[in-house]
Amino acid sequence: MNQLDKYKEIFFQQVRKIQDEVCDQIKLMDPEVQLTEDQWERNDFEGNPGGGGLTRVFLGDKIENAGVNTSLVFGKIDPKFGQKFGGDADTMWATGVSLIIHPRNPRVPTTHANFRMIQIGEKFWFGGGADLTPYYPYEEDFKEFHGVWKKALGPYGHYQKMKETCDTYFTNTHRDNEMRGIGGIFYDHFNSGNLEADFEMARTLSEHFIPSYFPLANRRLNEEWTEEDEEFMLHRRGRYVEFNLLHDRGTKFGLESNGRTDSILVSLPRRCMYTYQYAPKPASPHEKMMEYYRPKDWV
Amino acid sequence: MNQLDKYKEIFFQQVRKIQDEVCDQIKLMDPEVQLTEDQWERNDFEGNPGGGGLTRVFLGDKIENAGVNTSLVFGKIDPKFGQKFGGDADTMWATGVSLIIHPRNPRVPTTHANFRMIQIGEKFWFGGGADLTPYYPYEEDFKEFHGVWKKALGPYGHYQKMKETCDTYFTNTHRDNEMRGIGGIFYDHFNSGNLEADFEMARTLSEHFIPSYFPLANRRLNEEWTEEDEEFMLHRRGRYVEFNLLHDRGTKFGLESNGRTDSILVSLPRRCMYTYQYAPKPASPHEKMMEYYRPKDWV
Repeated sequence: MNQLDKYKEIFFQQVRKIQDEVCDQIKLMDPEVQLTEDQWERNDFEGNPGGGGLTRVFLGDKIENAGVNTSLVFGKIDPKFGQKFGGDADTMWATGVSLIIHPRNPRVPTTHANFRMIQIGEKFWFGGGADLTPYYPYEEDFKEFHGVWKKALGPYGHYQKMKETCDTYFTNTHRDNEMRGIGGIFYDHFNSGNLEADFEMARTLSEHFIPSYFPLANRRLNEEWTEEDEEFMLHRRGRYVEFNLLHDRGTKFGLESNGRTDSILVSLPRRCMYTYQYAPKPASPHEKMMEYYRPKDWV
Repeated sequence: MNQLDKYKEIFFQQVRKIQDEVCDQIKLMDPEVQLTEDQWERNDFEGNPGGGGLTRVFLGDKIENAGVNTSLVFGKIDPKFGQKFGGDADTMWATGVSLIIHPRNPRVPTTHANFRMIQIGEKFWFGGGADLTPYYPYEEDFKEFHGVWKKALGPYGHYQKMKETCDTYFTNTHRDNEMRGIGGIFYDHFNSGNLEADFEMARTLSEHFIPSYFPLANRRLNEEWTEEDEEFMLHRRGRYVEFNLLHDRGTKFGLESNGRTDSILVSLPRRCMYTYQYAPKPASPHEKMMEYYRPKDWV
């Protein structure tokens, strides 16, 4: 087994481990949560077996809905697809974990994370990140979330760049550049030439998702909330859907490459609302919250 | 005033008339409905005044949300835009009425219609249509809706083609080609060379929207509904959002051409739900309804 194959194998193991650990955290947060698990398989572009995935979906009173998915896919690809990556590649290999958590309580933020390794033809790289979508202006939580990522990325010197990439990426350009949430970190097509180091950074990032989210989520879990809090959350979830369906490249890529629609769109919130010219009440926490959906230096 | 300018003017008058008449029908259906009216203006590609529109948004107990919009826009366009229409056109002119009605009662279908006239450079054409998105399997209503359009289009011989275009267009390709609703009629880029006749057909179509929808909607308006009916409606409205944000060319065109986002996305339902692998109860009316979201000969 060559070095690349070795890291592909251990990154897949890492991805599965994160999936299990995040699912355990979800069950701790919401012991009554209902879990649906689906193992699925796919064919590649030529109709041969091309790997598959494991989708885990949660529905509950505290976790309104969540999806924690892993996949390992490979095989022949549509040549048009390969060309996008600047070569005449006709094969791909990819593995990753992708997760989304939409809590029921508007005081607990939504979160999304993804850690992946991709190979198209001879080229390969790591990518992914984690971001937070809060609905209540607990600034200390936002600082805490970014603080974890700054610390995780400190040794690599990549926090600032990955934070800015995230700010730019998760933006509703059709809504006057309002961000989906308060950002986090995001990177893609990362290959420094040192596979061992790149793998180690990807592994480290994946290990920091749980400490970045669950302590703050659990702290807010049993807070009382108002009807206005909920309405604001449902409105912002509408914006979340707009981002995912209009702008998210991962969603587009998945649907256009004939991915498993229900696994891809598990990212959508269970409930949401659309309101013409929605405006939070003047001087409310929700009006305050609107200020945070803009790029900001957190730590 | 030349002949084209004359028809542009009277088509705009027609569009405004339909807007007023549809708004009157909405108020009759839901006398307590709350109306927000916004007159807006836009600049063209070079920053000069480029027309605007009149957005009317309804929120109520019987009409959960509705939008009835007209616009008249003109001026310089991005040359890239002009090239899409096969020329080196740098000016455009367009007027139309666009409407969406999402009733509260799941027994009353959602409807959408649009009637427009567009000129890019020297080329001009008519387009639009009307379609129905029911949530309860009242087959007689679907036949009635299509019957009105077949009759309206009878003299022109275009019903079958426009019905098929509608079936194909309003389809969620990422959901195994499930249709958004039960179709209706749709046409675009229509210019037979006889402006007077083309105008007359466009006018006739716009006059048939009210009789195609309101009689059947009013007949169902006060029916009792169940929790399951509502859940199914909210689920199907999720599919409606998926279509509008992932596939609808009008929405994309509007957002990419820097249109008024709130007027464009007024098409989204006030509430909706997303459920992983949603399936209606076996032998329920909702399972029956699923069969109708496929192309079918109605009349």
